[in-house]
This record gives sequence, structure tokens and C-alpha cells, in this order.
Amino acid sequence: MITVDEALDYVLAETTEADNHKVKLEEAMGYSLAQPVTSDRDYPPFNRSAMDGYAIHQDGYSPQKEYRVVGRILAGEFYKDTLQPGQALKVMTGCPTPEGANCVIKIEDARELDDHAVRFEAAQTKVWQNIARQGEDLAEGSGVFARGHRIQETDIMTLSSLGRYELSVKKPPSIAIISTGDEIIEIDQKPEFFQIRNSNYYTLKALLSSYNISDIKKLHAHDNAESLDQTLNLAFEFDITILTGGVSMGDADFVPQVLERRSVKKVFHKVAIRPGKPIWFGRRPNGFPVFGLPGNPMSVQVGFKIFIEPLIRQYLEMPMIKPLQLPLSVEKKKRHQFREFFPVKFDLDCMSRTAIIPVKTNGSGDIRGSAFSDGLAIQPEDQDRIEAKTNISFIPWVSSK
Amino acid sequence: MITVDEALDYVLAETTEADNHKVKLEEAMGYSLAQPVTSDRDYPPFNRSAMDGYAIHQDGYSPQKEYRVVGRILAGEFYKDTLQPGQALKVMTGCPTPEGANCVIKIEDARELDDHAVRFEAAQTKVWQNIARQGEDLAEGSGVFARGHRIQETDIMTLSSLGRYELSVKKPPSIAIISTGDEIIEIDQKPEFFQIRNSNYYTLKALLSSYNISDIKKLHAHDNAESLDQTLNLAFEFDITILTGGVSMGDADFVPQVLERRSVKKVFHKVAIRPGKPIWFGRRPNGFPVFGLPGNPMSVQVGFKIFIEPLIRQYLEMPMIKPLQLPLSVEKKKRHQFREFFPVKFDLDCMSRTAIIPVKTNGSGDIRGSAFSDGLAIQPEDQDRIEAKTNISFIPWVSSK
Repeated sequence: MITVDEALDYVLAETTEADNHKVKLEEAMGYSLAQPVTSDRDYPPFNRSAMDGYAIHQDGYSPQKEYRVVGRILAGEFYKDTLQPGQALKVMTGCPTPEGANCVIKIEDARELDDHAVRFEAAQTKVWQNIARQGEDLAEGSGVFARGHRIQETDIMTLSSLGRYELSVKKPPSIAIISTGDEIIEIDQKPEFFQIRNSNYYTLKALLSSYNISDIKKLHAHDNAESLDQTLNLAFEFDITILTGGVSMGDADFVPQVLERRSVKKVFHKVAIRPGKPIWFGRRPNGFPVFGLPGNPMSVQVGFKIFIEPLIRQYLEMPMIKPLQLPLSVEKKKRHQFREFFPVKFDLDCMSRTAIIPVKTNGSGDIRGSAFSDGLAIQPEDQDRIEAKTNISFIPWVSSK
Repeated sequence: MITVDEALDYVLAETTEADNHKVKLEEAMGYSLAQPVTSDRDYPPFNRSAMDGYAIHQDGYSPQKEYRVVGRILAGEFYKDTLQPGQALKVMTGCPTPEGANCVIKIEDARELDDHAVRFEAAQTKVWQNIARQGEDLAEGSGVFARGHRIQETDIMTLSSLGRYELSVKKPPSIAIISTGDEIIEIDQKPEFFQIRNSNYYTLKALLSSYNISDIKKLHAHDNAESLDQTLNLAFEFDITILTGGVSMGDADFVPQVLERRSVKKVFHKVAIRPGKPIWFGRRPNGFPVFGLPGNPMSVQVGFKIFIEPLIRQYLEMPMIKPLQLPLSVEKKKRHQFREFFPVKFDLDCMSRTAIIPVKTNGSGDIRGSAFSDGLAIQPEDQDRIEAKTNISFIPWVSSK
């Protein structure tokens, strides 16, 4: 049996290049950039007043000096002439300061003598005081986001400011999800006592949605080779094939056989991971990946987070998710040599610090499984016991980055 | 000037009740439940084998004893008769164990003598060994999710298992967003040097999207009372009105005047918060809220997270977001008595523990503002200096819960 790290290396060993496509900014969240984004102009695009006040040239400034007010501008307006020594222009925050000005004195320090004259109470002034200089945030042509950057909520401000109303992004893969098992029925059907509803398709679809993956085919195969074979004809129209169920020892066990008969080359079967040990992974002759996940819901979610999501991120050239390191509130034991992933939720420890605590479930068949959890914590292979308050790795269910 | 807590109390003081509407499970993420979800049947719905093996009645078990194999079933099949003492039924993981069985012996401990007879090597057995008993995870009719629970990715497994293909959820509010300012142009237009593109609408829309708020009206008012007045006619068709810009001192300052002329009762103007001090909040005669946020992008994002998002969550009966408590990697000073919110990203401290570190920005006008950040950290009013490694409150930009 191979380790989780070895298995992930195999999964990520080969990758095809994603196509690019264009999306509108309003639909761009969750996509990764196919091209770097650079600045279309200087930011600020002009010397910008950071205060409501008066723009002046500060050469020869003194608190007694009277300045002639040559005008008043609001944001969206500008003063066309060059400001002369001894002149002052009233400006609002965000206004361009005129040529010839190199200082803004804030309104609270101004004594307006009449409509045309002003004196200031500031003891002294500095060059470029209260002015954000053109290009100081970002110079025209400089890089803002790299290729592969994943667009999140807070990037929208930057992208809209830059005028990127349309973006070239990596096109996510299409995915076929095959639920196997005679006992599986659709969620809108009434089950016989021995039947269970198809939850794995909906779970995977929900997890895939944050990557804007919508080209998803729902398929079901009965527990026989013929049914699976026919289903694969439909599945192989898609980039990634995910099967759930049919890979555990003692299962009808025809899934690996049928896949190999269909020239899907087995890369591994069984990984030292819990839950999800019987995971099967192979590649079609064109290199496209095929995952066989055990059918229980926790194995499906863990299999997705640990193997499928990294593959999708690599395909889309996104950076890998870095686990957080948080203290575990309670002791955690295990009696196996596998790497264990268990659902946890946020908790406050005795030092008022964010910690994580396991969510109680009744085993891998519990339909409440990971509900109420914030993510998965990781217990390494060689740690039979994690002491309370130890920092351990934590992967949130959903990452916007 | 009032504090952030006082202001939030005002914002949350009145709330109307959201309508309910039905959504399909596949579109349900991010909504809150309008009714509690209970279990439609027992889970497991039958005594379920947790192993591949043989179901027997364990009374009188001994390792030497020979059992007669009465059949083999796969998941989705069941044995119709009652198992008699001395009989064994071969079952796969997930199969219903038959009436009369109260123990499953795993396949590795079985010695199959021929197709009809088996002996077991297990030294002893226990009642209900390797069987998940009917209803032990969840009894029929018991509560699973409360009203107001927000549906996240990991709940989909549970909801689909329960057959909730359609759900009654709280209908999110409709929202009008008015960008004010003559300097604002659309994002697909080429700006003159003194113009800037409308980023606030797109930023707010992105932040609203995780609440499935799609009924959003984009509006723009010029810097005069007449334009704003006309725009408000359109905005007041919506539940929540958000204005950006026009509320700072020194701004044309007509926004509060026009709002009050339109019978929007001022609740507060200016809060001891940074960024975002000049925030204006009022209510229409019908109680519907009107927010006036300062126009700079960071103030818009902070104003959304601290005032608007809590209002939306309360309206949808969702629980409030609880900040995490994480160590700040570096010292942080401030020279004001306001509560400060600053963008931070995750970091690893010297103890390999997740910490947060400020994202460098060039002030509130920097168009890169919160890009690359994971959320906002909070510096309390009375703390001029936070020492490095102190735990402080952190609000992630997006919460799936």
C-alpha cells in the first residue's frame, strides 16, 4: 500500500493544459487568471488630495501669509491652470491637485477670510503633505496579479478599478460522476427499507461548485459489468471521471476489472489513508484521470479534498491550498498506521485562542458526517496520539483563495 | 460620535421578516433554512453490516462451530427470511443484516469450507459486533438542522440522504447600490485622467454573492441633489439601499440632506471606526435600511462586513459570524481612539502556528487594498499598541457557515 504523499504525487504527475476562455468580471470569482493582470495606468492616476483642504505650493509658506483662493473643485473636477505661488485651490478628498501645487493643508487648519482669501494655522508644512502622488500605489504597466491567481471577492475591487470588465481565465475541467450500487436511488424517490438515496453526486457537485465547474454529468451504474461498461461510454466524454463505490474488498469488485478492460491503466489501488483506504486511481489512454472512491460519504469528501481538488487546482494552475496550523482542543488517538483525516470545527481554547475540536460522528456511514464541521484535521501516520493543545494541520472545506 | 457596538445595535434594532421560497437542493448552498429539517426515517434505516463478512446469531458461538451458509447478498439486496441459529449469511459492508442476526464476523476471520459451510477463527464475539443498528445515527423524526441554519457544502450530503431535493429557505433581500460622484465612470469606459472607474458596485456585488443575493440594482448619482433624488426613486423599489460616497465632511454633503428630504430618518452619521468613520445610516418610513458608506474602497468593504452583512444575516435568521482569535505576527500601533479594521493574511509564526500578518497597503485609496488578504483583523478602541504574538479577533472575508 502506498502513502498519501506517494499517491498524490502519482495523481499530480501528469496534467494536460486547460483551455482559456473569457468571463465577465461579475462572473469571474473562483476562476484562475490565464494571463497576468497589469496596471493600465498610474494609480493614483494624478496627484490626489488625501484631505479636504487647500492645495498650495508650500515654498515660502508661513502661518501669517494670506493666499488668494482661485477656485473650488469637487471630486471629478480639475483645475486647468497651473497654480501660482500665493494662490490656493480648495479641493476635496480624492481631487486632483493642480500643477504647481505640492501641498494640501487640511480644512480644519484654514481660516477663510472671505470667498477669495484664506490663511492657514498650521505651524509648518511639508512638500507633498496630504497628497498621494501619481503612480505611488501602482505604476502603469506594473504587475498586479500573476497568471494562475485565483480571483476572490476582495480582488474584484482591484480588477474593476483596472477596468478589467472581461477576463481571460482557465476553463475548468468537465466531470462525470458515476454512483455505483443497486441500492442507490434518486433523492426525490421514496426508498425501500434497504435502499439509500444518492448523496455522493450532490456532495461532489457542491464541493466542485466553488471552482465554477458546472459541466458535470450525473451517472449511475448498477452492480454489474455491463451496466458500468455502458455508463463509462457516457463518462468518457468528460475530462475527469469519478466513481463512487465498488472499489472496496468484498464489493462485487468488478469496477477495477471493467476499468482495466476499458484500457484505464491502474496507477494505484489502496492508500494508507483513513477514511478512504480502498481508493482506486487510473488513467485513460489519453492520460485523463479516473478516480474510484469508496462509496461512504466521508470517504468521498476526504477523497475529494486530498486527491481530486489538488488535481483540479494544478490543472487550473492555481496555487495549492496550504493547511492552517491550529491547536487541537482535546487528545486524539488512533490505532492504525494510516494518515487520518477527521472533521473538526472551530473552538476557543482556555487561552481564548482559536482551536479546533473534532465533530462527533457515528462512523463513516453517519449521514450527518461532516455537517457542522469547518474542515478536516490531519493526524500523521506515525502519531498514535496527539496531545491536547498540539498544533496540527487543518484544511477548511472551502478556500476562496 | 457613537461606537461601533452602538452603531451595530441601531442597525440590528429593527428587522422585517424575510419571505420564504423554495429552492432545489443543487442551488441551496448559502441559503438559510426557513423550516427545521428532521429525519424522514431511521438512519441507518436497517441494521447495517459495517464489514464484509458473515451475519450470524452469536448465541452459542464458538470458533469450532460450523455454520450453514444460507446465502450471499450485496448492498441493495436483502435476505427475506429470519436467520436461524447455526445459519450464516454472507454480507457486504452496507448490507442489511437479516432478522435473527445480531453479529457480523469479518471475512478475514472466516474459513469457507465449501459453498455451503463456514467456520470462524474469532476467539469470541459480541452482540451487535460490526453492526450499525437501525436508528443509531439518527432516529426518524429527530431534528437535524434548525431553522436559520445556513446550508454549506458539507450539509449537502446530509440533505440529499434525507431526500430533501427541494428546500424552503429564507429569501434574501433585494439591494440597490448607488455609486455617487461625477468622477465615477463605468468599468468598460476609458477614463480621463481625473476619472476613476466604478469599483464599489462590483465589490459589493461580489461580497453579496455568497448570500445568493442576485436582485441587485446598479445605480449612479451625480453630485447634485436632483440626480440623487431621481436615483432614489429607483433605489426605493428595493429592500436595502447602499450609497457609496457623498457622506464625508467636505463632500458636496447633499446626500444626507436629500435622504432626509425623502423622509429617510437619520439614525447615525459618523462612527468611531477606521476606515469608514463618515458612515451614514437611516431608515425609510417603512423601516427599510439605507446605508451611506464613504466612497473609498476599503471603507466600503469594512462597512459591508461590520454593518451590512450582520443585518443581512439577521434578516435571514442566520447565526452571526464569530471572529476567530489568532496571534498577530507583528506589533501594531494606532494613534486614534477608534476601532480599527485592517486587512491581514495568514502567516506561520515561529512556533509553526497559524498567525495573521497585516497586508501592506498604501492607505485607503490604494486600489489593491484588501487583495491578497484573507480577512480583517480588529484593533480595539483602547489599544494603541498590540504587541506581537497577541491573540486578536479576525473575520475572514467569506464565511460558508
